[in-house]
Amino acid sequence: MREKNPIETLIDLMARLPGLGPRSARRAVLHLIRKRGALLAPLAEAMAQVAATARECLNCGNVSTGDVCPICADEARANGILCVVEDVADLWAMERAQVFRGRYHVLGGTLSALDGIGPDELRIPRLKDRLAAERVTEVILALNATIDGQTTAHYIADQLEGRVALSSLAQGVPIGGELDYLDDGTITAALNARKRF
Amino acid sequence: MREKNPIETLIDLMARLPGLGPRSARRAVLHLIRKRGALLAPLAEAMAQVAATARECLNCGNVSTGDVCPICADEARANGILCVVEDVADLWAMERAQVFRGRYHVLGGTLSALDGIGPDELRIPRLKDRLAAERVTEVILALNATIDGQTTAHYIADQLEGRVALSSLAQGVPIGGELDYLDDGTITAALNARKRF
Repeated sequence: MREKNPIETLIDLMARLPGLGPRSARRAVLHLIRKRGALLAPLAEAMAQVAATARECLNCGNVSTGDVCPICADEARANGILCVVEDVADLWAMERAQVFRGRYHVLGGTLSALDGIGPDELRIPRLKDRLAAERVTEVILALNATIDGQTTAHYIADQLEGRVALSSLAQGVPIGGELDYLDDGTITAALNARKRF
Repeated sequence: MREKNPIETLIDLMARLPGLGPRSARRAVLHLIRKRGALLAPLAEAMAQVAATARECLNCGNVSTGDVCPICADEARANGILCVVEDVADLWAMERAQVFRGRYHVLGGTLSALDGIGPDELRIPRLKDRLAAERVTEVILALNATIDGQTTAHYIADQLEGRVALSSLAQGVPIGGELDYLDDGTITAALNARKRF
């Protein structure tokens, strides 16, 4: 069989990205080749740079281009509030809302007996270390509203009980949400947590 | 405003790929960072290589990493049959079927009065040059079954009339197709071109 050319190699690699299959990878590569000056070359450069520099923040588990991520390095964010999230995508979502001014702790997943993921796989010991080291007064459990997320939140709450104030994100009707499209669980949560108008 | 870090730069560039938006670009970049050894580094390398070497085949318009693409360079494919396609994605689709053993001619689009695309924008002059240079006996017009594709096919057929045998792809029921889901035009074409069983 003949050797693969660089274009075929690129298509095969692109097809391994989440959300892209062989067909969309081919489309993306043709687009890149058409815009090789404006897009392909800068993209290759950006990827090489991230590949060379990206790592996990040693403190919180965020992705970073240094040993410590910009949030952990920012003294202004050491306000004593730690927001615990499942993964980096959740941290990014919180940051986009631009409302939380403390620091994060990225667990790297949720507890799962089936997958053999226990507290030590989840950066939970490191969370305990940080409570004293960073004089944390409140831990916000911002885990996903899934069974695994809530199980993990309860486990962490048990572990930290009495050492720090604990809170979790409010549950209820999302902004822009229509009751008719919401599931029973959300409506129940919103009703139970109703506020005086 | 603070300077963008390399990870944000990479997300912005990835979001410019067809089929990816900001959200899927973030997901892809997180995936890449997690697999920076197995996927991100090879992808950066493959992109740099394609950016440095990819160009249009001077003969047929296919994308290539040399001045002449492997198909035009392969003497075994000089069988006197030229397959005219709109763009490189169509050429790749034909090649995947592994049934056509001649060479291609990539127009680079279709004629369009609205967009100001005339024959000279479409590598049609080059097609005429190739007829004599490559002793072409048959031209297959494999343009898309769209209004623009068929208009362009008719224009090329007019231009080449009498100089070479002309053919076009058969129209009919696609393999696996169910009549109930086909449009009227396809059924009409299939009925008019019916074959003895």
